[in-house]
Amino acid sequence: MNLIVAQPLTREAFAPFGDVIDTEGAASFLINKGKCERFHDLAKVEVTGDNARVLVSIVRSQPYPTPAKLEMVERHPFGSQAFVPLCPMPFLVVVCPDENGRPGKPHAFITKGGQGVNYFRNTWHGVLTPIVKEQDFLVVDRGGDGTNLEEFYFDTPFEIS
Amino acid sequence: MNLIVAQPLTREAFAPFGDVIDTEGAASFLINKGKCERFHDLAKVEVTGDNARVLVSIVRSQPYPTPAKLEMVERHPFGSQAFVPLCPMPFLVVVCPDENGRPGKPHAFITKGGQGVNYFRNTWHGVLTPIVKEQDFLVVDRGGDGTNLEEFYFDTPFEIS
Repeated sequence: MNLIVAQPLTREAFAPFGDVIDTEGAASFLINKGKCERFHDLAKVEVTGDNARVLVSIVRSQPYPTPAKLEMVERHPFGSQAFVPLCPMPFLVVVCPDENGRPGKPHAFITKGGQGVNYFRNTWHGVLTPIVKEQDFLVVDRGGDGTNLEEFYFDTPFEIS
Repeated sequence: MNLIVAQPLTREAFAPFGDVIDTEGAASFLINKGKCERFHDLAKVEVTGDNARVLVSIVRSQPYPTPAKLEMVERHPFGSQAFVPLCPMPFLVVVCPDENGRPGKPHAFITKGGQGVNYFRNTWHGVLTPIVKEQDFLVVDRGGDGTNLEEFYFDTPFEIS
């Protein structure tokens, strides 16, 4: 198996693939007579296609053992997809550049507890991968008509450590 | 002051005003080869008006003392607004029916730790009111042109206990 070493998730490193949803380093302003700080507009939400609309869901995922085995990635041609942890624990984020319609070499990131991600529309990514214990996430993604899922299975799985 | 007693937040009681964003009692299905349960489509996200788009933000609010004093409510004519706590602590939710363009008598709810809410477009509601300690929330609401805020100050404040 090919080995990939996960790096700390930063806005800069993740920029080609999506947004990091986090207060740290984000612009903010005060609302509610100064009682509340708003870290504003942290993700580019995009939904396209027939009858497209934005969905808010919660997913509850079992953890994966590490090193994690990466056999496949997927992408959503009609919409972005955001995952924000509802309890601050790290999870694994895997994305790939697109190379002529196929995923290129994976990039792996490990979040700091509390960081969320928003995958841009049509960006190759691994499935949601908690690594500590069962974890709930708020998901903001796309509903609508059409097939909004493309999967790619690697000939040789990667190992993410 | 008029006294309002907060009730436990339930989908049924909150239905005229918005969605309760919670796994409990929500329909779900399995994804990711059974490793992940998706509680699907928990909020009616609505954005209207010129250049409308869905925003994802984080807000960090200071807590309010209880009983809470309710001096004003607000509404957003161009979009829904969802608040989901990023750490499971209860907070206070106040909504009012509309009565000929003015807010009617407030209804107050106390969330169970973890419950979020989505206010329907143009629904009168109080400002975000944590009551335990400083609390972060993910917010899904509307960006775009136009004035998306209407405020109403009560002649006599309410006290919410």
